[in-house]
Amino acid sequence: MNPETAPLPVLYPIGVVHSPLRDPAEAPRQGREAGIEAEIEVFPQYLPALQGVGERDRLLVVCWLHRSRRDLLQVPAKDGAGPPRGVFSTRSPNRPNPLAVYPVELMSVNGHRLRVRGIDAVDGTPVVDLKPRVPRLDD
Amino acid sequence: MNPETAPLPVLYPIGVVHSPLRDPAEAPRQGREAGIEAEIEVFPQYLPALQGVGERDRLLVVCWLHRSRRDLLQVPAKDGAGPPRGVFSTRSPNRPNPLAVYPVELMSVNGHRLRVRGIDAVDGTPVVDLKPRVPRLDD
Repeated sequence: MNPETAPLPVLYPIGVVHSPLRDPAEAPRQGREAGIEAEIEVFPQYLPALQGVGERDRLLVVCWLHRSRRDLLQVPAKDGAGPPRGVFSTRSPNRPNPLAVYPVELMSVNGHRLRVRGIDAVDGTPVVDLKPRVPRLDD
Repeated sequence: MNPETAPLPVLYPIGVVHSPLRDPAEAPRQGREAGIEAEIEVFPQYLPALQGVGERDRLLVVCWLHRSRRDLLQVPAKDGAGPPRGVFSTRSPNRPNPLAVYPVELMSVNGHRLRVRGIDAVDGTPVVDLKPRVPRLDD
């Protein structure tokens, strides 16, 4: 099946980020160094999928950056000088599919609530996947 | 807006993987060590988004694993012993949103075709995002 004619994949939000960050403009450029702590609330129907997550130290949290623009294919160069950059050569939140992948430290698990450190997604950002971070696959 | 009631995000395939791997069963468990080379064909309408990608050595390729099952929340333990694992504590391709994140070496760029090493997605797998891999963000 040609992916251009196949039905478009629809994402199901499996949870939501609760964070002190309210506005993308507040997000530090180095979100991870700032060590922002946030809570991932996994929706109750996905609780069985969390079995064993508490044994992991680090996770990849895949978010849908719902406030992003999807129609931008290029963004200005970071320093304002030079030609525009294609979004696939940047980590701009604006891109055709505004997915973000955050490696986080898992601090604690309380039922369907995960305390994590190192995510600069704003409060209310939908979460679409969680995976263990595995050096063999991710480094 | 509550993400549970917001419209569900729809992904646009931005390209497709061309690979010698035809069947998930062929995929080596250590796909990256096997160093499989594949081509990412980016659809022509997204060519402007590739501007500057050729300057990068490593990319994250985000794929939609279109052959996966989305209804499984748990999978058997790897060694067949022990209780089932929640999919969010595994890298199983079967998960509510079957997204895969592959860090690859970028070998060459020829127009809208990217030669990459280190991806075990099968031939025909839709690509939904490309990002530069940045140690500060991804390690």
